[in-house]
Amino acid sequence: MAKAAIMGFGTVGGGVYDIIDASREKVSLNAGEPIDVKYILDIRDFPNHPRKELFTKDFSDILNDPEVTVVAEVMGGLHPAYEFTKSLLENGKSVVTSNKELVATYGTELLAIAREKNVNYFFEASVGGGIPVIRPIHQCLTANNILKIAGILNGTTNYILNEMITKGKAFADALADAQKLGYAERNPAADIEGHDACRKIAILASLASRNFVDYNDIPTEGITEITLDDVNCAAKLGAVIKLIGYARFLEDGKVFSIVAPMLIDKSDPLSGVDGVMNAVMITGDSVGDVMFYGAGAGKLPTASAVVADMIDAVKHCERSKKIFWEKPEKNITASGDDVKFSYFIRTGDSADNIKAAFEDCRFTESAVTGESAFITEPLTAAEIEDRLEKLSSVISKIRVFN
Amino acid sequence: MAKAAIMGFGTVGGGVYDIIDASREKVSLNAGEPIDVKYILDIRDFPNHPRKELFTKDFSDILNDPEVTVVAEVMGGLHPAYEFTKSLLENGKSVVTSNKELVATYGTELLAIAREKNVNYFFEASVGGGIPVIRPIHQCLTANNILKIAGILNGTTNYILNEMITKGKAFADALADAQKLGYAERNPAADIEGHDACRKIAILASLASRNFVDYNDIPTEGITEITLDDVNCAAKLGAVIKLIGYARFLEDGKVFSIVAPMLIDKSDPLSGVDGVMNAVMITGDSVGDVMFYGAGAGKLPTASAVVADMIDAVKHCERSKKIFWEKPEKNITASGDDVKFSYFIRTGDSADNIKAAFEDCRFTESAVTGESAFITEPLTAAEIEDRLEKLSSVISKIRVFN
Repeated sequence: MAKAAIMGFGTVGGGVYDIIDASREKVSLNAGEPIDVKYILDIRDFPNHPRKELFTKDFSDILNDPEVTVVAEVMGGLHPAYEFTKSLLENGKSVVTSNKELVATYGTELLAIAREKNVNYFFEASVGGGIPVIRPIHQCLTANNILKIAGILNGTTNYILNEMITKGKAFADALADAQKLGYAERNPAADIEGHDACRKIAILASLASRNFVDYNDIPTEGITEITLDDVNCAAKLGAVIKLIGYARFLEDGKVFSIVAPMLIDKSDPLSGVDGVMNAVMITGDSVGDVMFYGAGAGKLPTASAVVADMIDAVKHCERSKKIFWEKPEKNITASGDDVKFSYFIRTGDSADNIKAAFEDCRFTESAVTGESAFITEPLTAAEIEDRLEKLSSVISKIRVFN
Repeated sequence: MAKAAIMGFGTVGGGVYDIIDASREKVSLNAGEPIDVKYILDIRDFPNHPRKELFTKDFSDILNDPEVTVVAEVMGGLHPAYEFTKSLLENGKSVVTSNKELVATYGTELLAIAREKNVNYFFEASVGGGIPVIRPIHQCLTANNILKIAGILNGTTNYILNEMITKGKAFADALADAQKLGYAERNPAADIEGHDACRKIAILASLASRNFVDYNDIPTEGITEITLDDVNCAAKLGAVIKLIGYARFLEDGKVFSIVAPMLIDKSDPLSGVDGVMNAVMITGDSVGDVMFYGAGAGKLPTASAVVADMIDAVKHCERSKKIFWEKPEKNITASGDDVKFSYFIRTGDSADNIKAAFEDCRFTESAVTGESAFITEPLTAAEIEDRLEKLSSVISKIRVFN
């Protein structure tokens, strides 16, 4: 019988408790022994919970109980989650988490402590909710050199864009509807400005490269500038606009990462990821493109990933699975001048001026009268800026996914 | 340094050798030690291979070499692959395989031997080529009760149907083109009659239920009866026809499995799986739908899954991962009368006769003049047969995916 603790009894914490409680037999079969929740840490009171004796407000109850071998940290935020996790790992307990902020910020250190103490720090639920993606990268694609990761990593923005695409809603209306439905928070900045997706692609890029990719170094554009006109112009091209967390692993060991809205052709599997769903596309040198799709958030999907990590931690008790990345000795951040994208441009300028600025552009039908729309040849960040300066106006500039 | 052997130097075997050779450092990092191919077993001669000294025609070289701890069985077929695999496992060597025929037929026994001998028998490459699907079911979705698995498991049939859908080719022409391109074999029966997909869904259903699902018990329809008229009628409905390997896990522990062409709405992620690509959709009670997508065949994709299994086997040397299913004590095969499907029906009969036979059917636009097309209410196998007997003719009967 493995003894566990849950830190944080919010939505995900409640789901973790419920799954372990409801699937006792299945969890036991898969873990090799039953998992028993001995503590639930929360600063709030839950006097009506059927197992109210499990609740504690004192972290040291968990830290100092030698029976507890695995702890689910689902409290969120950096502090005290960081201090708690560090202490637990140092005390030889495995920790599993859904806390992307913490993994993206302190993952390097926490994974190193876990290795050193021969325990595990698992974080499947931190990216893509219930979709298996961390373990597949770490275990299933190990025979591949990963060339690229591209994901729809934020359900809120995907829902908003999908409403714009399928129902012709303006951005503000789609956002308001998302808020009404509980898909977007009252302060939606973390989602719509791309910061949530940024943390997640930083984790995936770190895992795939085994080098820490700092989310502070990742250029991040949200979807707040995307208009219905953009969406309609994309439709004329047989494409949709999606917010993409993107990482490309260059031959020199550098990593180019970005979060930005991108134009995706409808023949691409990522284009069909609708509503609040998430998907991660991984390109390996042997396997080609593989995609993992599913619910990227939500109580039970996310909790099911946390519980799967708890099961794996119990199976690998006192045996580190050696999931890690390290702080690189030199700077591995590639810039926008190390990679090329084609761009989708809308402008009020004349066709002649466009042709003078862009040698090899492809004009497309605009959904707006009086405008020109075109796709550029693949260009670096400096090159596109240089060319666009020659135009009298730029209404939109959106990368084309490749 | 782990010593390995490759049995069978065909397409996949060659890919396994190439990946291990080209990614020596990466394999070593992931496995925790280098993997060195010591033997390649094949009845043919490869006098021009740069490492021709590795080749042997004598299986006992591998069996009796105590240094060899992991063997990739990529020879295909049941015999002697079964006897070789059994001997290796009994001798305490881990075996990894891409041989779906062998896993579907003798998996129960071979997995039991592996458990008993504390070694591993891995088979990620047997379903979905390079797409991670076995390990995600076994390790990532362990907190879920799996309710349903539905997969596009055969690239040949998916290519043929896709050509019919997107280019308006007749079945025979699409098949001929697939043969020209090497996507279909000269004798295409195993693919187009659904037998290949049947082995694969049997493996997935066995893994998910932990009970052996015998492919001989799975009703299997191929795509040979699907006509361009069917495809065009589906298009009128906003749907496509795909060959689906399908398993539903009923509350009483029974498993309903089938391989059949199904009508899939274009809003379903499986509908967008085009060309030779494969995808597996798994429905868990907590996670909801998750889908895994990628190349289901091909030299390097399949080989990359074999090599990932070899890496995992080296990491778990002398420690069984306890992937298994058992022969159930009682019959767990659900029949077509335990589940309900809606059906898409094309008939030359009159609307009045149709309405008399089907209380709650939904007429749809037919792509063929003089015909009626409709979708039935959900019906068991006996119910649909009973109703259809009341019609003067049935041109097509295709299940609607759900």
